[in-house]
Amino acid sequence: MNVVVLCGGVGAARFLRGLMHVVPAKDLTAVVNTGDDLELHGLTICPDLDTITYTVADAIDPGRGWGLENETWTSLQALERFEAVRPADSTAATTWFGLGDKDLATHLYRTHRLTEGATLTTVTAEIAKAWEVPFRLLPMSDDPIRTHVETVDYGTISFQEYFVRHRHNIAVRSLKFAGATTACVSPDVLQAITHADRIIIAPSNPFVSIGPLRALPDLERALQERRENTVAISPLVGGKALKGPADRLLSELGYEVTQKSIATIYNPIASSLLIDTIDADQAPAIAATGMTPIVTNTIMSDLLTTKSLAQTALQT
Amino acid sequence: MNVVVLCGGVGAARFLRGLMHVVPAKDLTAVVNTGDDLELHGLTICPDLDTITYTVADAIDPGRGWGLENETWTSLQALERFEAVRPADSTAATTWFGLGDKDLATHLYRTHRLTEGATLTTVTAEIAKAWEVPFRLLPMSDDPIRTHVETVDYGTISFQEYFVRHRHNIAVRSLKFAGATTACVSPDVLQAITHADRIIIAPSNPFVSIGPLRALPDLERALQERRENTVAISPLVGGKALKGPADRLLSELGYEVTQKSIATIYNPIASSLLIDTIDADQAPAIAATGMTPIVTNTIMSDLLTTKSLAQTALQT
Repeated sequence: MNVVVLCGGVGAARFLRGLMHVVPAKDLTAVVNTGDDLELHGLTICPDLDTITYTVADAIDPGRGWGLENETWTSLQALERFEAVRPADSTAATTWFGLGDKDLATHLYRTHRLTEGATLTTVTAEIAKAWEVPFRLLPMSDDPIRTHVETVDYGTISFQEYFVRHRHNIAVRSLKFAGATTACVSPDVLQAITHADRIIIAPSNPFVSIGPLRALPDLERALQERRENTVAISPLVGGKALKGPADRLLSELGYEVTQKSIATIYNPIASSLLIDTIDADQAPAIAATGMTPIVTNTIMSDLLTTKSLAQTALQT
Repeated sequence: MNVVVLCGGVGAARFLRGLMHVVPAKDLTAVVNTGDDLELHGLTICPDLDTITYTVADAIDPGRGWGLENETWTSLQALERFEAVRPADSTAATTWFGLGDKDLATHLYRTHRLTEGATLTTVTAEIAKAWEVPFRLLPMSDDPIRTHVETVDYGTISFQEYFVRHRHNIAVRSLKFAGATTACVSPDVLQAITHADRIIIAPSNPFVSIGPLRALPDLERALQERRENTVAISPLVGGKALKGPADRLLSELGYEVTQKSIATIYNPIASSLLIDTIDADQAPAIAATGMTPIVTNTIMSDLLTTKSLAQTALQT
């Protein structure tokens, strides 16, 4: 049974850690958002891919939820020296984006390989192999797609400025996925989607994690064709996102903060929606949109619960 | 009195530490070789510029003679993970070129600024300011010039492969300065050379440190025009280079390992040659080439001796 998971970062990473115990690694493909990617210090950084890699490798810092455990920050601290000499219009010596010394090695390797002409798909496979990720990890595209956030008070800023620098604690007007309409979906991704027996949308943010994938016209079309084989896991539990700004974004982008809204958003590409037992009363509203509601425990508090959630997502 | 110093790395850096106590900083310009520069891990690295910056800032590691003191190597060690997954034709995850965690910050800043469109001259001035280098530090060119070493046993390799990887312990057939004939000399450099009251060739390697500067046709021409104002400091002491492969290269490139050979090499661009007292008997041979020999202590064993050498270079 070939399984494809559509992924953002933290939520997807945690889900995959459970799923990989339930599906043979050779049958599992993760298709990952690259709209969060950024160029900083001349390096290409892919936060969602790395969060999945580090999580699956059991090397993620459990406290922060991003980056590597037992990390040091020598380079980043040494960059502070240059803040005072950087011109006003430069973003060099940016230190609000946390890059640990060990983590830097991943970006150095990736950037070096990209300058050699390797595709992001190829480099991602190499990095995944180095970290012994057992399943196939695919960036959604080899072309750069960058999520831009139109904010109420700070103009249009990059995703990481929104997410990290402002801790997603500012009002959003709209999202744009620069490069998405002209980017090519990775051929490996299209093939994986076409041949999947089951497609699972991880409990990621529908707007900023899954949104960039859907902004690729060929990928959205391919997903719509596989709607009957696709199940989405809602990131909402009791009207809140367990992590990140999904709840706030729903509201700011004109939706009610309900499972019905998640169903409306995913309806074109998924036929079932997994919601938490706490939201069981919202099942009829989901059914009314034409999706099949499935009520289960969606809080991935430990590996056992996560495996159980993965099992449910596979069986529906 | 405007003073310009033509510089490689370690020898020039040490000389400048003395000279800056003898010449007011505002009157002093260092013009630095960039033929040693390299692209590694997607970063642009300028070893000679950095060696001068770190030395003058009193931050160089005194034991190694390169890089920063109290350095850590976390990123470089973390790169080792990727050696096993790197394709055979890739140079990613190269770990023989030592990049400490603090040092990395300099390369991250430089690379970021270059990707923003800043010239190497501009970025170098910013980095120098951040490290409080009191005088003007200029790369010889804003265009990439790369020293390639044709070896007897390893084919043609990059300068750093020759110098660091093989510890300059292999036989050299010839040197090439890729990009030199089409590169533009930095306008600031040409202006500094034209207006200098005194030009000093630091006790650097005539082939791999000063050679790249002279490979720029406009710079060689400008230097020839200022021959009468230029004094060279020989890197040889008693038939040996105190550091680096100057002696070995002399021999391999067809010269005798004598002060006369240094005179022959520098004759077109310098009217005087400073040699060490131990080589006083070679003064007549230098004079015979048409250069004025000046005998003094050229071993920069401490700041006092270095200042005295600088004073001599200024007064001749």
